[in-house]
Amino acid sequence: MSTEAVANALAAVETPALVLDREKLRRNARQMAAAVGSRGVMLRPHVKTHKSVAVWQEIVAAGGTRGITVSTLAEAEHFFAHGATDILYAVGIAPAKIARAARLLRAGARLMLVVDDPGQAGAVAAAARAEQVVLPLVIEIDVDGHRAGIRPDADELVPLARFIATEPGLQLAGVMTHAGGSYGSASLADRTAAARNEATRIVEAAARIRAAGLACEIVSIGSTPTALTPVDLAGVTEVRAGVYSFFDLVMAGLGVAEPQQIAISVLATVIGHQAEKGLLITDAGWMALSRDRGTASQAVDQGYGLVCDAQGHVLADVIVRECNQEHGIVGYRTPGAGLAPAHFPVGTQLRILPNHACATAAQHGHYVVVDENGIIGHWPRISGW
Amino acid sequence: MSTEAVANALAAVETPALVLDREKLRRNARQMAAAVGSRGVMLRPHVKTHKSVAVWQEIVAAGGTRGITVSTLAEAEHFFAHGATDILYAVGIAPAKIARAARLLRAGARLMLVVDDPGQAGAVAAAARAEQVVLPLVIEIDVDGHRAGIRPDADELVPLARFIATEPGLQLAGVMTHAGGSYGSASLADRTAAARNEATRIVEAAARIRAAGLACEIVSIGSTPTALTPVDLAGVTEVRAGVYSFFDLVMAGLGVAEPQQIAISVLATVIGHQAEKGLLITDAGWMALSRDRGTASQAVDQGYGLVCDAQGHVLADVIVRECNQEHGIVGYRTPGAGLAPAHFPVGTQLRILPNHACATAAQHGHYVVVDENGIIGHWPRISGW
Repeated sequence: MSTEAVANALAAVETPALVLDREKLRRNARQMAAAVGSRGVMLRPHVKTHKSVAVWQEIVAAGGTRGITVSTLAEAEHFFAHGATDILYAVGIAPAKIARAARLLRAGARLMLVVDDPGQAGAVAAAARAEQVVLPLVIEIDVDGHRAGIRPDADELVPLARFIATEPGLQLAGVMTHAGGSYGSASLADRTAAARNEATRIVEAAARIRAAGLACEIVSIGSTPTALTPVDLAGVTEVRAGVYSFFDLVMAGLGVAEPQQIAISVLATVIGHQAEKGLLITDAGWMALSRDRGTASQAVDQGYGLVCDAQGHVLADVIVRECNQEHGIVGYRTPGAGLAPAHFPVGTQLRILPNHACATAAQHGHYVVVDENGIIGHWPRISGW
Repeated sequence: MSTEAVANALAAVETPALVLDREKLRRNARQMAAAVGSRGVMLRPHVKTHKSVAVWQEIVAAGGTRGITVSTLAEAEHFFAHGATDILYAVGIAPAKIARAARLLRAGARLMLVVDDPGQAGAVAAAARAEQVVLPLVIEIDVDGHRAGIRPDADELVPLARFIATEPGLQLAGVMTHAGGSYGSASLADRTAAARNEATRIVEAAARIRAAGLACEIVSIGSTPTALTPVDLAGVTEVRAGVYSFFDLVMAGLGVAEPQQIAISVLATVIGHQAEKGLLITDAGWMALSRDRGTASQAVDQGYGLVCDAQGHVLADVIVRECNQEHGIVGYRTPGAGLAPAHFPVGTQLRILPNHACATAAQHGHYVVVDENGIIGHWPRISGW
């Protein structure tokens, strides 16, 4: 594999730009497909990280299924238009969005919506009647107090399930959870415990619903850190995960991936120096990198990103220390050590690994896709809601 | 003025959405035009905050001039296509971008580029010869060690100015600086000192260049915090500022604006509760708000934004405490106090004031523009480079 061929091809790319290494994407996708598939569970990839039909097609080719998870109705519409029919919209539904969801259902999508509140379910039922559709609903379960959902042992769970199952415009499709707490795991043992808790508690919720005589077909868990932990998934029917397709420095900091697995980087150009401080100035500020500082709370703070040369080799301990809108300040993590301007003259290209792939990719309208021979395409991504 | 009419009109807007109050924009624009104009200096508004021709036209109508500042060549091209001809691209130029800049110059734009490095100026000169254009260059001056530029008293300044003035493909247009350090000012006295330092030191740089027998027409300073400080600007020819058109919580934290002056907000819908913790969950996560945490280092940390009701009234001490991609967690700043779910049922709309207007607006493709009667338009904004 020639990293030099890639660097040569990127020399003609105007910066800042979002570079996607297709081979790393494929490897990451195969790893997750194997990790989930080997436990007899369906993978429902989350498209919110990449928002790209071309990336999704690579994931499907690597062993994903046709089911997807989305974070916006815009994603649902876009991917449905490109062949996805089995879609879970994994954000609690606002009643005002039902009319738009109903259009997708009438067009033939199996679009599942998420609720966790009786008032919300009532409003959805009213909207479903008005739209004359039957809406498949999934109840969000809170397994770790992290975000949304009903506790698996809460008194409200079975009444809510029964309401959904019996209301004419609604259909109870199942339960789902997101072990967001796993992002704070300090060790593999912590992560494994979070994964075990996630699976155990969602299965408990499904069991309570079934014990009440109701169907609960889908038992859905999801987060990249827990999905790559080999805990037993008996009773779980599907795993949702998104960031694994690209990985990022937050995942590397959790020990879920190596920096070498990170499939996206921001191509930047040196535009100046602060020679006395041993710092470089590049044209990749927060507009290109995002304001995400997800590694700030980890053992190794990567600033606004870890810096590589144009060939993609990590420059050890060199990070983006500060950002303005269109300026990035690059230097060693530890003050004192300095970069020599002569080694990085104005015009030098660098590649910056992101803290958080979802956030960094969202700052760009397309991917410059490379393989070992050079640039193989420009893949668009969608934005908005 | 009826805030209720606005809230009623917004009830039909799908969330999250970026709302722009035109009257506040106009007032902010008039305030800056007066503050700068009264000191006999030209205002060169920075379009990087709004990236919208319609917003720029409001600023021009409020007393701005036709000159603009841009942060990307995409902005330069877009605003030139809509009538701006006097353009300062205020980011150090990467030589690979010259060909694109040259196209704008040939099309009739007076596009000024920024350099601060002899090697960079040499590369620009070579590119200018290849493109057969004469490039007007502005030397960036470092007045506070904040980012880029040459110190006003540095030995390299005059030789660089002479190189630019004598090189056939280059023209020395002047000097510019950005007092980025002013964003860290804790008081009006600090801010005034930063403003005085900015003006004094850029004038010093211009004087050194002129003393060497070279022309230095443009003496450009700029930052919203310093621009609104009434220091003497003798010797300065223009002021660049951008965020003042919208203002934001960072500016409010600096004492530069009141929260009531902030012209943009993110419209969000309550999609759930964490009743035990007194928290609301909305559909405005970091994708809608940005990851900017600019108030984290200020006296009052506003989380990911200060929360208002749908009419735009601030809910005192209620902030977005945490964000996921499409979830915002809303609660009181101080743990212990809780929001009652019954007061904010699922479906309730809220409006969130941004930490950093440039970053939050960049997450959206358009503005939903309101005046006292309701929605008056949807104004697009551009993105990318």
